[in-house]
Amino acid sequence: MAKDWENIIIGIDPGTNVMGYALLGVNAKKPQLIVMGVIKLDRMEDHYMRLRHIYERLSGVIEAYLPDEMAIEAPFYGKNVQSMLKLGRAQGVAMVAALNREIPITEYEPRKIKMAITGNGAASKEQVAMMLQRILGIDEEKMPDLLDATDALAAALCHFYERQKPFTGKGTKSWKAFIAQHPDRVKGK
Amino acid sequence: MAKDWENIIIGIDPGTNVMGYALLGVNAKKPQLIVMGVIKLDRMEDHYMRLRHIYERLSGVIEAYLPDEMAIEAPFYGKNVQSMLKLGRAQGVAMVAALNREIPITEYEPRKIKMAITGNGAASKEQVAMMLQRILGIDEEKMPDLLDATDALAAALCHFYERQKPFTGKGTKSWKAFIAQHPDRVKGK
Repeated sequence: MAKDWENIIIGIDPGTNVMGYALLGVNAKKPQLIVMGVIKLDRMEDHYMRLRHIYERLSGVIEAYLPDEMAIEAPFYGKNVQSMLKLGRAQGVAMVAALNREIPITEYEPRKIKMAITGNGAASKEQVAMMLQRILGIDEEKMPDLLDATDALAAALCHFYERQKPFTGKGTKSWKAFIAQHPDRVKGK
Repeated sequence: MAKDWENIIIGIDPGTNVMGYALLGVNAKKPQLIVMGVIKLDRMEDHYMRLRHIYERLSGVIEAYLPDEMAIEAPFYGKNVQSMLKLGRAQGVAMVAALNREIPITEYEPRKIKMAITGNGAASKEQVAMMLQRILGIDEEKMPDLLDATDALAAALCHFYERQKPFTGKGTKSWKAFIAQHPDRVKGK
């Protein structure tokens, strides 16, 4: 696939049952959804098969779209050490698929991503999806099929906003402040 | 490197500061140390550099020695979710380096490994090292340099013993029972 974007961010929502991914293209500082999808793992019983499948599928996506950066949703707190160990393995495999291709990685806490997209760190999955749909002008009919990948897209868009921040070190902290500064970014309002 | 062993097991002790590895060759059901070493990570500040380094170095070792199986020391319980997440990432990266080359993986709890090597699930690192030295006839002078990799070698040897078990499903459970059955395996006694 030809790379006709100034910049492409791959967003990843790594999980042990489903891994979501989304490619966000940027031209003239305007973000646009290229493609989003999920890597389903729950049909594979073997934990190692899942890890290998993550690496292979994600490597395929990276080879196809050649993203410049990876943004990954990474919870810092989990239910228990068992689930964090398994999540860590899935994350590590996703990360090394990017690192092997010299793609820099940035991690974002779920709360930070929700805040960046909706202005509310405790927003529901549906609220995040609705804001993504508005901001990026995604067809409403397509959204139900894409719900498993919206967190990945949200991570990519969060990273886009972070990079847009001025270099003072303290940038736009809330969605409200962001739309006040960039009213043209809000679609459908 | 030519493969002149019937079977080669790579043992891995994955950590976020040091990753130990050991190659155990088997001929005529007799295990022998081929090589052991460590991948030092603590000089790299960047967490992602560490993950990439694990993948690259371990891939190099696998390409050089072409092991048939991987045995990995994997604690199921950790101090906290933070450290388990980081450990999981290191484990996932080590695992995918093997999985990408179709090498099957078996995980062993540290306690199980210590039990298999010394007959005591709470044995010290030094006790494990001493038993490995005796069982495999490793030069005593070389051991101090190899201490960081002995847990990896212990994982490989534990896997060798596990595979030796009869197919009744219940095999040799303790080192004492093992030496009673195989007195010829114990060197230096």
